Amino acid sequence: MPVIDCEIGEGTHVWHPDLVNLYGCTIGRNCNIGAFVEIGPNVTIGDNVRIGSGAFIPEGVEIGNNVFIGPKVAFANDKYPPSGRAEWTQWKTVVEDGVSIGVGARILPSVILGACCQIGAGAVVTRSVPAGATWVGIPAQLLRRSDGYCAEVPQ
Amino acid sequence: MPVIDCEIGEGTHVWHPDLVNLYGCTIGRNCNIGAFVEIGPNVTIGDNVRIGSGAFIPEGVEIGNNVFIGPKVAFANDKYPPSGRAEWTQWKTVVEDGVSIGVGARILPSVILGACCQIGAGAVVTRSVPAGATWVGIPAQLLRRSDGYCAEVPQ
Amino acid sequence: MPVIDCEIGEGTHVWHPDLVNLYGCTIGRNCNIGAFVEIGPNVTIGDNVRIGSGAFIPEGVEIGNNVFIGPKVAFANDKYPPSGRAEWTQWKTVVEDGVSIGVGARILPSVILGACCQIGAGAVVTRSVPAGATWVGIPAQLLRRSDGYCAEVPQ
Repeated sequence: MPVIDCEIGEGTHVWHPDLVNLYGCTIGRNCNIGAFVEIGPNVTIGDNVRIGSGAFIPEGVEIGNNVFIGPKVAFANDKYPPSGRAEWTQWKTVVEDGVSIGVGARILPSVILGACCQIGAGAVVTRSVPAGATWVGIPAQLLRRSDGYCAEVPQ
Repeated sequence: MPVIDCEIGEGTHVWHPDLVNLYGCTIGRNCNIGAFVEIGPNVTIGDNVRIGSGAFIPEGVEIGNNVFIGPKVAFANDKYPPSGRAEWTQWKTVVEDGVSIGVGARILPSVILGACCQIGAGAVVTRSVPAGATWVGIPAQLLRRSDGYCAEVPQ
Repeated sequence: MPVIDCEIGEGTHVWHPDLVNLYGCTIGRNCNIGAFVEIGPNVTIGDNVRIGSGAFIPEGVEIGNNVFIGPKVAFANDKYPPSGRAEWTQWKTVVEDGVSIGVGARILPSVILGACCQIGAGAVVTRSVPAGATWVGIPAQLLRRSDGYCAEVPQ
């Protein structure tokens, strides 16, 4: 069963443990993890997080509470991915509480997705996104500012 | 075997039944379903449909006959995907006969892809596409109008 | 085990042989092949190649040495993918030595990716890319010319 050395909180469902690749990660409570998902070592995921089918979350990513990671969403695992022989660089990407990432979006490394921001389907996020804002496109740009309401952060 | 409670027509091949996640769907005759494909409950698929490796087709999608769904194509399962705690909304997406969707395109909910339209690789479709037209880009826009020929619809 | 009729070189790791779909392909030495990867018949891959989780490499693709294929990268398997009943056309796509393809990029058929070129995350490559250049976006366009250094080609 390809769920290896992970800490998984109470109430969390990995719907198809034989069709995922989870190793060395920490997942909170009441999460839903779809099929064909890969989560790498040292990734931490909060509570009440939904991770759609086929999402890819490699080492270096930290995810808060109440987050939606759409199907096929992928985080890059290097800014300048080397070909075969080179070493790759460590980086850190943070997804704050209440963020929603649309289907098939790509998130480049070393960005912060601010609390409750929304990333459109298929967007490519190349820099940090402010809390509450909606960003779409390639490269992702502002579509709508926050309406000031974000249940996940103090008002 | 993760093909559960599906009706599958004569002549249809699910090439790797142990590497897909099909549940509660209805698939017609003479279709080809690739590996790493997920098809959700109540999805209906017509005859002579090819579904490429890694495609994601959630509840709410209805697919006609003679359709090509490219590898890694994904349909969104909510217009405003909620983070962890919220409920999601029902929607409906229709793919008419003869449609061809290029590799890795994303289709947002509540659209109609008109008969024989073509969606370019990597496109993000945010609104309905007329029959026969070719749409590409993010968000998807018109590249070419129909040439008036569509074997799938009455001339 | 869905690794069928492949020639695989010394030192190459297929990390999850039960979670890939490799058939009829030839892979060189010291490569890394992630989970949920599909590689089709007659594909040839050189030495020291990394292929990320969920990549899709169909028949017609030829990959050199020291190449990085990011997670979720997909090559199209037809320029004008036919719906159900039609035949599809043969094509050829070449990825030269030292190329790096960012996460989730889509490569259309019949292109050459020149030695050491870099393709940005989520890009859709519709035509050939010169050696050493960095291309991004949909459709992919020039971001940076080569700095003249490419360890993979004679200086």
